[in-house]
Amino acid sequence: MTGTLTIIGIGPGQADWIVPAATVALDAATDVVGYQPYLDRIAQRPGQKRHASDNRAELDRARHALAIATGGGRVAVVSGGDPGVFAMAAAVFEAIEAGEPAWRALEVTVIPGISAMQAASARIGAPLGHDFCAISLSDNLKPWEIVQRRLRAAAEADFVIALFNPASKARPEGIHQAFALLRGCKAAATPVAFARSISRPDERIVLTTLADADPAIADMSTLVLIGSSETRFIERPGRQPWLLTPRTYGAGR
Amino acid sequence: MTGTLTIIGIGPGQADWIVPAATVALDAATDVVGYQPYLDRIAQRPGQKRHASDNRAELDRARHALAIATGGGRVAVVSGGDPGVFAMAAAVFEAIEAGEPAWRALEVTVIPGISAMQAASARIGAPLGHDFCAISLSDNLKPWEIVQRRLRAAAEADFVIALFNPASKARPEGIHQAFALLRGCKAAATPVAFARSISRPDERIVLTTLADADPAIADMSTLVLIGSSETRFIERPGRQPWLLTPRTYGAGR
Repeated sequence: MTGTLTIIGIGPGQADWIVPAATVALDAATDVVGYQPYLDRIAQRPGQKRHASDNRAELDRARHALAIATGGGRVAVVSGGDPGVFAMAAAVFEAIEAGEPAWRALEVTVIPGISAMQAASARIGAPLGHDFCAISLSDNLKPWEIVQRRLRAAAEADFVIALFNPASKARPEGIHQAFALLRGCKAAATPVAFARSISRPDERIVLTTLADADPAIADMSTLVLIGSSETRFIERPGRQPWLLTPRTYGAGR
Repeated sequence: MTGTLTIIGIGPGQADWIVPAATVALDAATDVVGYQPYLDRIAQRPGQKRHASDNRAELDRARHALAIATGGGRVAVVSGGDPGVFAMAAAVFEAIEAGEPAWRALEVTVIPGISAMQAASARIGAPLGHDFCAISLSDNLKPWEIVQRRLRAAAEADFVIALFNPASKARPEGIHQAFALLRGCKAAATPVAFARSISRPDERIVLTTLADADPAIADMSTLVLIGSSETRFIERPGRQPWLLTPRTYGAGR
């Protein structure tokens, strides 16, 4: 008997940002596999087994999930944000690619979720209203040279830049180096947002500029957005401004 | 009396990919504003007014919604995909920026949704597992030179590239020009996906390579994904292959 594997995005935090398809899949699962803090965010169903793991062990977690599914389980792999965006979907398909041939015959479903980038955007206005890129600064999965090359190209493209995993333990200086690089090729007044733990109790948003930003405030729960030349604040009396990247380019110049 | 304005993402199509927060906001709305095909996808609540408009009239639609909210309505602006990603959120904030001072005092909430890019990714594997960019080829909102510059920089960065609005009526040749440009700076074997109408009845996925791709099959309902140098197919016996961009970079070289 062959089971199924469903990779589920549970978004950044708030329960009413989880798509109903994810909830249905969680209800149907015999086994739920995930990083412990993500498992803590979802209700345990009666008779359901939970398999928690450390955040660093993504590939082990994926293999474990695939083995249970191959044995007949209906497995849900829980991912923060969107599983397709710097999250568990890639780990599962990497495990399949390198793993047992039987895994390629499995029924694998990905259920999308709200990524940290979208959550941040929703809270602060419309910073992603025009072309953008997403770059992970995560530690040891790629050479730092490729990060630098991508940041330079992103500045050359004048993309809005979303930085994921800005402050990994293995490379705490990465976010400082990224800001130093971007300060050399983007305007000082470029809007910057640090969006931490969006939709969780410790949510915190800091809006600033590239010149004034303190990269040290970014931790692993922070999504950093750096504007394009078109991104701007919309000031509001007595309230946090909105951040807008308009759909038009160069209209004001 | 001042009302509220909520900008809601209803995703690419299937109802169980709409976050519950969106459904709650639709239930509470006195007025729903949106492009007719999006309104057709949601149930009308008793006593609720609907304001349909043409797809080109985004800014007019945003102003109309803001005027109703300023008059005391609880307005839901319905957007396909994620309102923050090439959709209605930017139009609303542009209207606020250029509009009446009273609009800046409104309670505006953005409820995120599943974008076409995420829907495509979920259906075909994990193509967005590493750094990526999103570029709209939409017609008349930016000079074509900036599109070219961004495509070149995206190739230089070796991003996975998501092309939104690939075939607008005003510029049907855009997608052909984009492919010609990318063929000049990326490998012929680079995987390409055309993901059309994902999660709608006319869903259609074509997986191919940069050399073999026929850009003419992309219409306005198509999201085009072009891989990085790391993106690859995972072949499956008798099934559509999966597409994977691994989390590591350069590991196999």
